[in-house]
Amino acid sequence: MIIFVANNNTAMNYFSSDFKLGILGGGQLGKMLLADTRKFDIQTYVLDPSAEAPSRMGCNKFFQGDLMDFDTVYEFGKKVDVLTFEIELVNLEALEKLESEGLKVYPSPKTLRKIQNKGRQKDFYTANSLPTSPFKRFNALGALKAAVENTTVSFPFVWKSAEFGYDGNGVKVARSITDLANLPDVECIAEDMVPFKNELAVIVVRNPKGDIKTYPVVEMEFHPEANQVEYVICPARIDEKVAAKARAIALQVSEAFGHVGLLAVEMFQTEDDTILINEVAPRPHNSGHYSIEASYTSQFENHLRAILDLPLGNTDSKVAGIMVNLVGEEGHSGQVVYQNIEKILAIDGVTPHIYGKRETRPFRKMGHVTIVNENIAEARKTAEEVKKLIRVISNS
Amino acid sequence: MIIFVANNNTAMNYFSSDFKLGILGGGQLGKMLLADTRKFDIQTYVLDPSAEAPSRMGCNKFFQGDLMDFDTVYEFGKKVDVLTFEIELVNLEALEKLESEGLKVYPSPKTLRKIQNKGRQKDFYTANSLPTSPFKRFNALGALKAAVENTTVSFPFVWKSAEFGYDGNGVKVARSITDLANLPDVECIAEDMVPFKNELAVIVVRNPKGDIKTYPVVEMEFHPEANQVEYVICPARIDEKVAAKARAIALQVSEAFGHVGLLAVEMFQTEDDTILINEVAPRPHNSGHYSIEASYTSQFENHLRAILDLPLGNTDSKVAGIMVNLVGEEGHSGQVVYQNIEKILAIDGVTPHIYGKRETRPFRKMGHVTIVNENIAEARKTAEEVKKLIRVISNS
Repeated sequence: MIIFVANNNTAMNYFSSDFKLGILGGGQLGKMLLADTRKFDIQTYVLDPSAEAPSRMGCNKFFQGDLMDFDTVYEFGKKVDVLTFEIELVNLEALEKLESEGLKVYPSPKTLRKIQNKGRQKDFYTANSLPTSPFKRFNALGALKAAVENTTVSFPFVWKSAEFGYDGNGVKVARSITDLANLPDVECIAEDMVPFKNELAVIVVRNPKGDIKTYPVVEMEFHPEANQVEYVICPARIDEKVAAKARAIALQVSEAFGHVGLLAVEMFQTEDDTILINEVAPRPHNSGHYSIEASYTSQFENHLRAILDLPLGNTDSKVAGIMVNLVGEEGHSGQVVYQNIEKILAIDGVTPHIYGKRETRPFRKMGHVTIVNENIAEARKTAEEVKKLIRVISNS
Repeated sequence: MIIFVANNNTAMNYFSSDFKLGILGGGQLGKMLLADTRKFDIQTYVLDPSAEAPSRMGCNKFFQGDLMDFDTVYEFGKKVDVLTFEIELVNLEALEKLESEGLKVYPSPKTLRKIQNKGRQKDFYTANSLPTSPFKRFNALGALKAAVENTTVSFPFVWKSAEFGYDGNGVKVARSITDLANLPDVECIAEDMVPFKNELAVIVVRNPKGDIKTYPVVEMEFHPEANQVEYVICPARIDEKVAAKARAIALQVSEAFGHVGLLAVEMFQTEDDTILINEVAPRPHNSGHYSIEASYTSQFENHLRAILDLPLGNTDSKVAGIMVNLVGEEGHSGQVVYQNIEKILAIDGVTPHIYGKRETRPFRKMGHVTIVNENIAEARKTAEEVKKLIRVISNS
């Protein structure tokens, strides 16, 4: 019988043992993380509010409960040996209490507290001399309006809700006073509009020992008209020096936070090749999904290695990778059908990932497709073909 | 509401639908197959005699039951839309009845019937002009002994039990009459001992439409003294012409069987570069585990694509791959410990797969490690390092 000692300094026995990893959130990120806990046979407990969560399967025990509720999160944390999360919207006070009681919570609630509030996050970059676009913080919408009136803030600027902004909610470009009219009266920031030629991202992985690695820079390619990310491309088709700068900045961000686990650093490349940090996500990230097929070690496996204080895996790519999100088509709600999926499966190097949500809704993230190829231009052509073929619709 | 029509000719809706795939056997092969059913969100039911089977997690429903029992297998088959297996030792009569009632059973019970009996399997090769070593069939040990006495069969030869031979059981090199003394009195074959310089394997994947692909030839490298497979190496370090011949023969075997799903064809390369079929396995195979990390499409994903009549994935490799089996060390029984696993995780390109068996026993297959590298010689060096470090022991 193994006695698991949580604070033991010797290498722990995670594999086919009594050790339990707790994961807050049971969405697609959790589901993809579970593929690696299964590969290593590491026990997992998952907490999610939905009984239909994508991670309901593949974990050792699934708990249905509110991630924002102190008691629910605290009691869940008491059952596990290491606690992580796949979503930032979790009860921070419970994480802090668990950590103060000796539980290993990775990423740290301290980091999460800084990140959860976008104003505090921007202040952190300034305090650490990390490049980010100029901004001002306001504790309410009225204060922002007053600043606009007395010209401390001038149009155009980007309004961002300080908290609970997620997947494009809580962000708006303000070009005139009328754009402020229907905004919620919440703490917010006003960011200068910085013209940029590329939106980039770098995923950093760091373990408690301080070992740290970055993945290659990825590039978001936008649809020329819809202003929507169409492709995440790895490696980014940018100058090597710019790429090296982006990776160096991402490293600094992770180290400044003393971060443990994955940190996805979203950045802008301005017209004059300045790199500005946009925001970070302390978890596996959409911009790293390509890594499952393209990298020597996927972002999910490296997150797991990091939070368990195991050596980090090679973040290099075997081949070029492009990711296309599968989102529910407008005008379709109900039981999902992945139209033409058999056609994209017929193309070499194409791997669909279906998250396991039975019901589609307009713009709901239902899955993604990875395209890999030795040649990035070939991969890019295939990605376009995939994008044209696949449709996420309902059968009704 | 989707009505699933099992015999519909249009592309079926397998993804996040009511469709159910049944898998007979819940061992490591099933577990690795489930990684891909999860990726595609295809519902799975698994039947295995052990409540502790590696596939108990990651399937939609797990059934505990005897795979050799007619009623258990038949009733399980009645619950699913397509039925496959990850182990050959299943009740064939139940599969045949289910198939006769319209259920899609892949690989076909007809093929399995030919394969399950090694005498019939060898006869099949002869009947189809497929190269295999010379052999004679005997319905009992007595008949073989009589053949030895009247010199129809002469030493040395390889004795093989016709049925239930698995993982080295049921095979013995007979050099003199004393070697026959303790053999079981069962149907058997006597095979000529053919000196070979390489043991090779080719995995073939074929779907019901008849689309067919082969994976590259892999090579088993044996320990110079222990005569035990140490490494499975892809691609095999052999002459291209020999490799092409091996792939062509493997294709012919799959087509001769009219096989659907994966077929692993084990072969000998003789001193004069003749290829002889040793035996086949109609399922994902140990010699294809490298494909998870090294291939564009893993053997497991391609098995799934094949049995669902989806287009087959690219069988080419992104990088060279070497596989090392993790088997329980002699003298160790009990709760497993993977000694030095953190040391092999520190080496680039190393991925351990832990099957999820809590108890180790001498020679029990507990997992495997894949080593990938652009350079096969580098991979081979790393594999040796891994092999020296990792130990599968018990903690008691």
